[in-house]
Amino acid sequence: MDILKDRILSEGQALGGNVLKVDSFLNHKVDPKLMYDMGTYFSEYFKDHGITKIFTIESSGIAPTVMTAMQMGLQMVTLKKQASKILNGDVYQTTVHSFTKNMDYELTLSKKYIDKDDKILIIDDFLANGEAALGAARVVEMAGATVAGIGIVIEKSFQPGREMLNEKGYDVYSLARVSKLGKDLIEFITE
Amino acid sequence: MDILKDRILSEGQALGGNVLKVDSFLNHKVDPKLMYDMGTYFSEYFKDHGITKIFTIESSGIAPTVMTAMQMGLQMVTLKKQASKILNGDVYQTTVHSFTKNMDYELTLSKKYIDKDDKILIIDDFLANGEAALGAARVVEMAGATVAGIGIVIEKSFQPGREMLNEKGYDVYSLARVSKLGKDLIEFITE
Repeated sequence: MDILKDRILSEGQALGGNVLKVDSFLNHKVDPKLMYDMGTYFSEYFKDHGITKIFTIESSGIAPTVMTAMQMGLQMVTLKKQASKILNGDVYQTTVHSFTKNMDYELTLSKKYIDKDDKILIIDDFLANGEAALGAARVVEMAGATVAGIGIVIEKSFQPGREMLNEKGYDVYSLARVSKLGKDLIEFITE
Repeated sequence: MDILKDRILSEGQALGGNVLKVDSFLNHKVDPKLMYDMGTYFSEYFKDHGITKIFTIESSGIAPTVMTAMQMGLQMVTLKKQASKILNGDVYQTTVHSFTKNMDYELTLSKKYIDKDDKILIIDDFLANGEAALGAARVVEMAGATVAGIGIVIEKSFQPGREMLNEKGYDVYSLARVSKLGKDLIEFITE
């Protein structure tokens, strides 16, 4: 998605070797037109996957996901990050480790909003170590439903997440694939 | 907004006297078309207020806000809920108490994304005690900018938030105003 790569190049900040800050259009200030365009790309790619619902993880995935869901005519579900386990039978939960924040949270889905026939598209803002996407996939599979695709806004291809998702056989589509980050340097995988 | 009131009546759950659960279209499962329609109502009401940016608070305000921002042709900013104070000069922060979760958080805005000439529309999903909206208004005013309006999806008019915002002189527009909650009972203020 060239307009996204252009925005990353002009506004993204590479901090250290692993962190790409895109606070000016995705994670803090948000450009709604760009979110809509992301939705167009995701819906185009996944249109023949038989998707029945779209899941995201709070909170930076919500804006591109709601735009995708609108264009695909589907409902979305925001998986919640709970600090602690909910000890009743109404939810699916799995523990996810956040490397960015160096803490664990319980990714939580109400059982009401999924059933075993669902084919779920998971959308998230970043793919790095794959913890969040794999956690979302686990809650889908706990319900006996199918992960029909994973859509990522920005993939940091030099971290292990992409490979882990590929190994599980998921169909991963990333709008921008960053191959290298360094001081004043952002490079993409060209496809 | 009649279609919103209809959804609240058919799907909302009144828990105790104060809590209205709308997990099936706003806070967990999210209906993108309804979010778009909320955006249409907000943008219609606030179109002549000279708004320059739209702020919301993570995470349930994001979906209706990004739809509003798209229709108004404006950028949005998601105010972050930080667990602790950031001790540098790059952000505006204010402590907000969440009655729902019985905890405090630091509502956080990067100084880069506001300036004193901004006229800010604040949008949030619920108005109850007014803590979140007043906190958002404080960070806007810390920057010397103006709160040009406050848009609320669901106002619980029997709690003190609305009156507190009115006393401060803010222009508050709520899509649904709940006057009474009880066992199997949800009533609205009719206007």
